[in-house]
Amino acid sequence: MMNWAEVDTYAKRWIMEAGMSIRESFTHSLQISSKSEPNDLVTNIDKETEQFFARNIREQFPSHRILGEEGFGDKLQSLNGVVWIIDPIDGTMNFIHQRRNFAISIGVYKDGVGHLGYIYDVVQDELYFAEKGKGAFLNDVQLPNLQQKKVEEAILNINATWLIRNKRMDPKILIPLANTVRGTRSFGSAAIEMAYIASGRLDCYITMRLSPWDFAAGKVIVEEVGGIVTDLGGNPLNLMGVNPVFVSKPGLHQEILERFLLKNTHS
Amino acid sequence: MMNWAEVDTYAKRWIMEAGMSIRESFTHSLQISSKSEPNDLVTNIDKETEQFFARNIREQFPSHRILGEEGFGDKLQSLNGVVWIIDPIDGTMNFIHQRRNFAISIGVYKDGVGHLGYIYDVVQDELYFAEKGKGAFLNDVQLPNLQQKKVEEAILNINATWLIRNKRMDPKILIPLANTVRGTRSFGSAAIEMAYIASGRLDCYITMRLSPWDFAAGKVIVEEVGGIVTDLGGNPLNLMGVNPVFVSKPGLHQEILERFLLKNTHS
Repeated sequence: MMNWAEVDTYAKRWIMEAGMSIRESFTHSLQISSKSEPNDLVTNIDKETEQFFARNIREQFPSHRILGEEGFGDKLQSLNGVVWIIDPIDGTMNFIHQRRNFAISIGVYKDGVGHLGYIYDVVQDELYFAEKGKGAFLNDVQLPNLQQKKVEEAILNINATWLIRNKRMDPKILIPLANTVRGTRSFGSAAIEMAYIASGRLDCYITMRLSPWDFAAGKVIVEEVGGIVTDLGGNPLNLMGVNPVFVSKPGLHQEILERFLLKNTHS
Repeated sequence: MMNWAEVDTYAKRWIMEAGMSIRESFTHSLQISSKSEPNDLVTNIDKETEQFFARNIREQFPSHRILGEEGFGDKLQSLNGVVWIIDPIDGTMNFIHQRRNFAISIGVYKDGVGHLGYIYDVVQDELYFAEKGKGAFLNDVQLPNLQQKKVEEAILNINATWLIRNKRMDPKILIPLANTVRGTRSFGSAAIEMAYIASGRLDCYITMRLSPWDFAAGKVIVEEVGGIVTDLGGNPLNLMGVNPVFVSKPGLHQEILERFLLKNTHS
């Protein structure tokens, strides 16, 4: 029998401690390198923060495993058992350029099912968290269930590049949606954007390429307030791979699928 | 001889007072109506805030005139004399949906030249302000001059709709730019976006339709740290009308004009 309360206590303690270190790092200079491509940036702070979590988890919960963006976790072939899915700094480009609009994102899954989710907006000192079946919270305040909204009154979060590039999806499928919603925004951190869906600041979010550490926490939090997290066909996400992701309020999710995403992909 | 220090003292006092009222309004419900088109929203708070400024300015500085978004200012035929250019809540859609990412924006101009600029991010309690020739500040900290940056390393703020709609500009002109920069963002408040240019969080910003109250404050602040504010052809903005607007770090401004904006409009 899992003691989720114990896991939650440690997770929050470590997240607060890591957040404090990150805020302190603002007074030092960053070392920036790039990963797979020039704009896939990583800093010493990304690496140090993931190592901090990995070290603490291994010491406190030796049977748990770790899937982390920066590679200090385990080489996983499955999500069996308890797995911490960690993005130490989601929104590294914002972290470097803006020193805001980035977050620590941690989901704790058991046998592939999300049980705990944490998105910590370090600069705002806003912790979004949820425990499966027990509600979602922003700091100490419980988030209400998401309300229905029509697509014409919705704010869609989408990065402009998905409307002009062709590598992953024909922009013709997304352009009519972007033209129908009330407004579009792009904050540049999947974790922050999913936290904003959960707190009602955004109504829907589409992006074409997220890894598990980008959405593992957000999925738990958004689902706990009645939101829906799928791929662009309305299917469950693959937790071991890269996904196109569609997050939305209920009702609106079905409306966008029917009026835009499924309609166009079938035509 | 203008006593700008006196104007500055009152402006800051009124802005702080208005900000407090707006934060307090979060506990009440908003009355929302629309202006010229369904998505051009206005609330009772927009109107009350502009009336608050207009009332105070008329009492304290009876010779000054007011150009305000909500229409409580004067009917101006020119910018002769001292004119307060006011957007009581820039980013009304964000104000309604997010309760953040909006700002009070006030520029004080004399004979068409910007002398004082204020952008107050009400929720963050961040006041960006500048006095012509005396530097720009974020709260009490002076903002450094903007540094050069290559377009490939730049963050461009652009709303996705400008890359897909055709009413104001052929998207073919902007798409190659959006494909070349390191990343795109969209916060949905011209004042916040210009404040982010001034503070180095964004590198360049393009939008197709701003009124004087959207950019009057930002222009003073951005120019005071060496940034450049023009239309998309590199020409000065019309302070009495609606403009396409291009704001950028120096150097980068010239590079984007030459490699993208002028090249494509002439081809």
